[in-house]
Amino acid sequence: MAQSFTKLEKIRFKHVDYAGIVFYPRFLEMLNDLVEDWFEEALDRPFSKMHDTNGIPTVDLKVQFKNAARLGELLTKKLWVKELKSSSVICGFQFINQHSKTVLEGDVTLVNVIISVDRNNIKAEPFSEEIKKKIMNYEL
Amino acid sequence: MAQSFTKLEKIRFKHVDYAGIVFYPRFLEMLNDLVEDWFEEALDRPFSKMHDTNGIPTVDLKVQFKNAARLGELLTKKLWVKELKSSSVICGFQFINQHSKTVLEGDVTLVNVIISVDRNNIKAEPFSEEIKKKIMNYEL
Amino acid sequence: MAQSFTKLEKIRFKHVDYAGIVFYPRFLEMLNDLVEDWFEEALDRPFSKMHDTNGIPTVDLKVQFKNAARLGELLTKKLWVKELKSSSVICGFQFINQHSKTVLEGDVTLVNVIISVDRNNIKAEPFSEEIKKKIMNYEL
Amino acid sequence: MAQSFTKLEKIRFKHVDYAGIVFYPRFLEMLNDLVEDWFEEALDRPFSKMHDTNGIPTVDLKVQFKNAARLGELLTKKLWVKELKSSSVICGFQFINQHSKTVLEGDVTLVNVIISVDRNNIKAEPFSEEIKKKIMNYEL
Repeated sequence: MAQSFTKLEKIRFKHVDYAGIVFYPRFLEMLNDLVEDWFEEALDRPFSKMHDTNGIPTVDLKVQFKNAARLGELLTKKLWVKELKSSSVICGFQFINQHSKTVLEGDVTLVNVIISVDRNNIKAEPFSEEIKKKIMNYEL
Repeated sequence: MAQSFTKLEKIRFKHVDYAGIVFYPRFLEMLNDLVEDWFEEALDRPFSKMHDTNGIPTVDLKVQFKNAARLGELLTKKLWVKELKSSSVICGFQFINQHSKTVLEGDVTLVNVIISVDRNNIKAEPFSEEIKKKIMNYEL
Repeated sequence: MAQSFTKLEKIRFKHVDYAGIVFYPRFLEMLNDLVEDWFEEALDRPFSKMHDTNGIPTVDLKVQFKNAARLGELLTKKLWVKELKSSSVICGFQFINQHSKTVLEGDVTLVNVIISVDRNNIKAEPFSEEIKKKIMNYEL
Repeated sequence: MAQSFTKLEKIRFKHVDYAGIVFYPRFLEMLNDLVEDWFEEALDRPFSKMHDTNGIPTVDLKVQFKNAARLGELLTKKLWVKELKSSSVICGFQFINQHSKTVLEGDVTLVNVIISVDRNNIKAEPFSEEIKKKIMNYEL
């Protein structure tokens, strides 16, 4: 099975700036939502269960913003796996508009971490075999 | 003159997530603030004057998140010029914490654009010689 | 017909603060989304069409935050009309969680305005009879 | 001593919407920043120390938005105490622009709470006498 994880998101008033186009930090919130949905819906690790003791912080991000997105547009957000390492995963992503134009695309590297109870220590931890298998379903 | 443009920013409650560290889209808001300050204070093109007819959207972004930042920490944000082209500029940036550790670093490419009055057209335009000279003061 | 306008919203990672509960300005973004959906889906005035020349800024807001909302919870957001005036409308709203507890409730007053092409003038304008009729469908 | 706690805040690109005026949830972030500064600078209880075990969630908010604020404007934000109760405090606030016009004003009620280590319990707790004394310095 080779597939990308896909969700839709509509551009809202809160996303756009003075020029009427999405303010780019809002695109990264949309990307974080996509990762969150992927973990909950496809990898069976909802953030609501995970975040007392674990997390998957972003350590590397590359984005090319290719076309502006405007209020009311419906974007298709896609995420797939480029490389799975012991405790991190490099995902590709692409947001496409209704005219099939690429709005943005890039790579994001997520690291699997354990967070101590007092939240002062955060350290990398290998993914379990079980979740690795699920992640690999999204390798393209 | 070879220098970086530098500003301070304190990590606030609104920036941090459930793990007590900065949610990464907030770092990009801080980066956008840094670019905004650079244009106003160093390049003499305040966004408040510029944004009826012009803009400098971000078209490419690369960031490595090296160390977490926590509530109350004071970051030093630095920006400098890596390459100036006809209508775009590639800037390097680095955020450093009070223990001189790099929190994040990367490159951002900004494009000089004209926005039509109805805001439906956005197109690249060469920088003027005057602003090019000011930008080059920050080439490292 | 007497009804409230209702939408669902799931609490996401980006909404919650260090204490693991929704940071309250995020609730106001959720309220703005609710108003935006009401105008598009029920009043036939999508923000994407409206915002070149018109707007409905919030001029008065009263909110009581009754119960915390946490990551993963699904909220039911309700909006209804309390009073329709010539160029403004007072809406009641309530967000309820899956245990039927009220998370927040309050009133918001929206004003119908015209925005000049240069965006320097914003002034109140009476609602049309057509939209008044649609608004009144949501009077409770 | 009767005084208000006062801070300045400049309207930035990230704050404004498509109409070129501040998107109102951003004003509430600015209000939260004001409360955060008051606790750190005037009450000697920095959020960075407080938030492992305590918090001051907002339980009631009333705001009137009187005048729009635009990119580049410098606002004076004022906060004062209207009523101090055992475990809560009602503060008045006002944001004023450079032309001495009120941008917004209102009341916010903050509750002093203890948060359990697992963050599942949040309950009200009386203010200490020490902090009550400091809070009362800002009663108008």
